[in-house]
Amino acid sequence: MTELLDVFARRVREPDFVAASAQKFLELGRRAGRFPVATAWRDGTTAEIDVWCSNDYLGMGQHPAVLAATKQAVDEFGAGAGGSRYIAGTNRYHMLLERELAELHGKESALLFSSGYMANDGSLTVLAGQAADCLVFSDELNHASIIDGLRHSGAQKHVFRHNDTGHLEQLLANADPDRPKLIVIESVYSMTGDIAPLAEIARLAERYRAMTFLDEVHAVGMYGPQGAGIAARDGLADRFTVVMGTLAKGFGTTGGYIAGPTAVVEAVSAFARPFIFTTALPPAVAAGALAAVRHLRTSEVERDRLKENARVLHQQLRAAGIPFLSDHTHIVSVLVGSDSACRELAALLLDRHGIYIQAIAGPSIPAGHEILRIAPDATHTPDEVRSLAAILDGLWKELGLPFSPR
Amino acid sequence: MTELLDVFARRVREPDFVAASAQKFLELGRRAGRFPVATAWRDGTTAEIDVWCSNDYLGMGQHPAVLAATKQAVDEFGAGAGGSRYIAGTNRYHMLLERELAELHGKESALLFSSGYMANDGSLTVLAGQAADCLVFSDELNHASIIDGLRHSGAQKHVFRHNDTGHLEQLLANADPDRPKLIVIESVYSMTGDIAPLAEIARLAERYRAMTFLDEVHAVGMYGPQGAGIAARDGLADRFTVVMGTLAKGFGTTGGYIAGPTAVVEAVSAFARPFIFTTALPPAVAAGALAAVRHLRTSEVERDRLKENARVLHQQLRAAGIPFLSDHTHIVSVLVGSDSACRELAALLLDRHGIYIQAIAGPSIPAGHEILRIAPDATHTPDEVRSLAAILDGLWKELGLPFSPR
Ligand SMILES: Cc1ncc(COP(=O)(O)O)c(C=O)c1O
Ligand SMILES: Cc1ncc(COP(=O)(O)O)c(C=O)c1O
Repeated sequence: MTELLDVFARRVREPDFVAASAQKFLELGRRAGRFPVATAWRDGTTAEIDVWCSNDYLGMGQHPAVLAATKQAVDEFGAGAGGSRYIAGTNRYHMLLERELAELHGKESALLFSSGYMANDGSLTVLAGQAADCLVFSDELNHASIIDGLRHSGAQKHVFRHNDTGHLEQLLANADPDRPKLIVIESVYSMTGDIAPLAEIARLAERYRAMTFLDEVHAVGMYGPQGAGIAARDGLADRFTVVMGTLAKGFGTTGGYIAGPTAVVEAVSAFARPFIFTTALPPAVAAGALAAVRHLRTSEVERDRLKENARVLHQQLRAAGIPFLSDHTHIVSVLVGSDSACRELAALLLDRHGIYIQAIAGPSIPAGHEILRIAPDATHTPDEVRSLAAILDGLWKELGLPFSPR
Repeated sequence: MTELLDVFARRVREPDFVAASAQKFLELGRRAGRFPVATAWRDGTTAEIDVWCSNDYLGMGQHPAVLAATKQAVDEFGAGAGGSRYIAGTNRYHMLLERELAELHGKESALLFSSGYMANDGSLTVLAGQAADCLVFSDELNHASIIDGLRHSGAQKHVFRHNDTGHLEQLLANADPDRPKLIVIESVYSMTGDIAPLAEIARLAERYRAMTFLDEVHAVGMYGPQGAGIAARDGLADRFTVVMGTLAKGFGTTGGYIAGPTAVVEAVSAFARPFIFTTALPPAVAAGALAAVRHLRTSEVERDRLKENARVLHQQLRAAGIPFLSDHTHIVSVLVGSDSACRELAALLLDRHGIYIQAIAGPSIPAGHEILRIAPDATHTPDEVRSLAAILDGLWKELGLPFSPR
């Protein structure tokens, strides 16, 4: 007789599991007003460290306007929403934020979720699942939440090679022209930091009459006029049906959303179970996010700083010959290529230099592609970026890691 | 050639869709310090209303200790977590809260999620999905998030009739004794308000060597010593393997969790995609929740008030002959049994009396079982409860709704 509990007791003693969970959570307290500085609690002691891998790319999580709006809303409406969106949980700030996001993206409507994960999971389950014969075309590097939403839709899916529009076109051309189609991509890919060929994908979508779903999670706030994202930057926003974003990265708070045609948003709000069957975002979180979105619609300072820091880092790494995956964006993934070297590098950075860059291995990344995913953000200075690159260069030599061919 | 966008444009014009979405969001601002009073924004005007259907059952969403802890943490650590739990997003308050929740439930470990939905979906996908031959036994009234997690696990599932331990035993007895088994139930059912026969289910689980997963979402904070839930109230906490809860109802904030044996919690944290691939809860939300949990571990006032209000409501409804589903708990679902009558009743309550009770129809409830789900909470007074019952009685007569046989 087998007991399920025994299954787990055995499972967590297996070597692969023990190795994977060697990667414990680093217990942090980012210091509001002093980002990127954080207190780290480790082995009963505390230390001040610099965070180089946060997704609060613009430092909006410490912006005075965001903190003030959050605290004011706590005083006004309390801590939690008190219910789901359909049952007593819709707060005025949810509605204001949805309107603001629709406007930001130039779409008819927007819909909030408790997280970007739930936004992708919930929306894609509905968008790909409502028409029985929907055919999905999905980039192979799409995020876990996209993969999960598409899987939960039950729709038939073609995965195309990363950013390979030739492959995408081939799949589209071979598909039954009468089936409704959905193309799902990201604008900025979360782990590689490269950008999708949006113009060409828009062209293919129009040619083959596919609806498009564009995850701009790592772009909103950071790119484009008013921070509306890469499609907006490239003048292509109108050519993507649905844009999806998060409030937890560039906007520094938490929550996810979609923006698109009213019919689509209404269908998602009526059928998406992760929208319906959960407590709404805390009003104060929505109020903080609203302040962040509004601020970034007019302020360029944060975007300019981020851009400059990314530029300096690309330049320094290139000069040092340290290999990295892409220079398209502020996501700078240094290719280490081995799990053990990656962990060792991260440990040395943290222990010797107080620099925190999380080593990324499975399940986010396939074996042999281990990276240090550096996210210099708007709260760093170009001098700090230079010093980071110099430290990396030293450790790269010390560990005998391979430099890129010049 | 079919376009997916057309599918949705047509779909939202179909009669069933239009009917369902007649139920729009009521735009609210619950007034911190004055719960259950809220401002409602409707058709360009505002009105003050009383909320009788919030899940912030104890009013912790306005508790001074919770608001102070939230605002202090905003000042300390900012608005958002800035990353996922594995990458730069683990805050000290997450760890403190996980320890507190493990202690509250007398379990080895606990794990936080961004919502109860994600906690159920993520945990059950792993718990039912890791052992290839796991067999699940699930109460037919289990919540959507449980159903989704089990579906996503791919495990074979037997659904037993609501609270019917005879049926459960029959299914267990007929199952292959060698397969690992998981029984999944709620303690307080969200829509019916009745309580599961926990002692008998624990006995069956032991007899048939099944692991148990107990959703105490509508019980934590409200029942049992220190608010640990129904299993704790009945001295049965040790006999359930995993307890799952939310921070968004009794604890007045937002977030979900599981507590259980370390092996189980570690496996879930290593494999649950809605845990791994999303931004962690805002530190200030965790801090507020921690304050709420700590407060309710020592204070009985809120629980006593809730209990008294529920008792008065049961008594008054029974005296008036208004049918309701169960008198086990503070969830008092008045059975209207028709969608149109339910909506009409809710509209009259709101428009004439400023009383907000959401009419509940599909997809939460099967047709013919439409209810007004009343949740008197700790912020109401017994006199307000009496007056609510009198108003309901008047409208019940006015609409000619059937009274229960005396
Ligand atoms: C591309 C992408 N989409 C969606 C998400 C989910 O967003 P959130 O963190 O708001 O859940 C993430 C990261 O977490 C992501 O990288
Ligand atoms: C029984 C039950 N489980 C889980 C949940 C989900 O909890 P949350 O609102 O925290 O997502 C709910 C309600 O939303 C529920 O009623």
